[in-house]
Amino acid sequence: ETESGPILYSYFRSSCSWRVRIALALKGIAYNQVPVNLLKDGGQQHSAEYKTLNPMQQVPTLKIDGITISQSLAIIHYLEETQPNPRLLPQDLKKRAQVRMISDHIVSGIQPLQVLLLISMQIRKQYRFPAVCDLNSLEQILQHTAGRYCVGNEVSIPDKFFIFCRYKVDLAPYPTIMRINKALLELEAFKVSHPARQPDTPAELRA
Amino acid sequence: ETESGPILYSYFRSSCSWRVRIALALKGIAYNQVPVNLLKDGGQQHSAEYKTLNPMQQVPTLKIDGITISQSLAIIHYLEETQPNPRLLPQDLKKRAQVRMISDHIVSGIQPLQVLLLISMQIRKQYRFPAVCDLNSLEQILQHTAGRYCVGNEVSIPDKFFIFCRYKVDLAPYPTIMRINKALLELEAFKVSHPARQPDTPAELRA
Repeated sequence: ETESGPILYSYFRSSCSWRVRIALALKGIAYNQVPVNLLKDGGQQHSAEYKTLNPMQQVPTLKIDGITISQSLAIIHYLEETQPNPRLLPQDLKKRAQVRMISDHIVSGIQPLQVLLLISMQIRKQYRFPAVCDLNSLEQILQHTAGRYCVGNEVSIPDKFFIFCRYKVDLAPYPTIMRINKALLELEAFKVSHPARQPDTPAELRA
Repeated sequence: ETESGPILYSYFRSSCSWRVRIALALKGIAYNQVPVNLLKDGGQQHSAEYKTLNPMQQVPTLKIDGITISQSLAIIHYLEETQPNPRLLPQDLKKRAQVRMISDHIVSGIQPLQVLLLISMQIRKQYRFPAVCDLNSLEQILQHTAGRYCVGNEVSIPDKFFIFCRYKVDLAPYPTIMRINKALLELEAFKVSHPARQPDTPAELRA
């Protein structure tokens, strides 16, 4: 049973991997995890074996129902469409649009900028670039859409993308973001999926 | 009728705006365009008026059915769900997963890297960064999924994200990408939506 069940190729620290673990946990889908260490051996995601599985050489990758999917948002949409309970997208089409707008803003607007932030840390010091992590606009949007979570009172897709604790960002200027972040970290699905509690989490980082 | 119809806030050159224009054209949805010049007046997207409409201060923004949506992929999903003909997502759930995987790869994997590429042109010269536009992995994925277009023989979401002509990238090493790009640029919906043919295209750039 588990041998033919879903296999998640992931790295304990990667936020994209965490997102997918959260979705699987919320939907109660059992799976096996295969660790792909992004730092060891020059990055195990670049191995010939992994490249065959995922030419994008990124984590996570999910093998499920005889197909292989990468990109966290695509994986979550597939899970939502094949196993709709509990829902991660509201039924109301206008609310769905809000949910997707916020997810896309985080995925394509904020996260790559965080990467840029990391890549260019040295360069920024020299060139005095401003910090580019634009939480201001996210805060403003959420003030319109949020209830207990990002859109209303039910957990939906953007909540899974909403993991700021790892970046040591000071959330005090963003009361809505701070409140939602706290509410999410209290959920069981977020706890069991946490980077500090994965099979490949090194002992010194476990919590 | 047109006064209460959809309004697209866009910039002729922006690829994200182009994507949405293509989706509207493919679905035969009439709309009015309000130009937002990203370069004039220090960037019209930063004006107080536009910020109220879209706190993310980006184009495009679509006003439709009494709501305001930003983020091109979220807009396209909304159009797909409210006006499903012609389809931009296949009915088969596994094919849908492929479609979304490729779209997400382009949106969050390739495009922000292009931005990084542009931002850091000067810096790269000095630091000898490699070019980061990873068309190699996209080519490999498409070799598995493509027919005439990105996934099979029907135009779907990633095709709208598939606009490489603007970046003067040499596509010769990527035969599948080159072939699809050519097929897409022959479609009427891509032609009428082209940056060279918009209301805000300056005379010297019209074609």
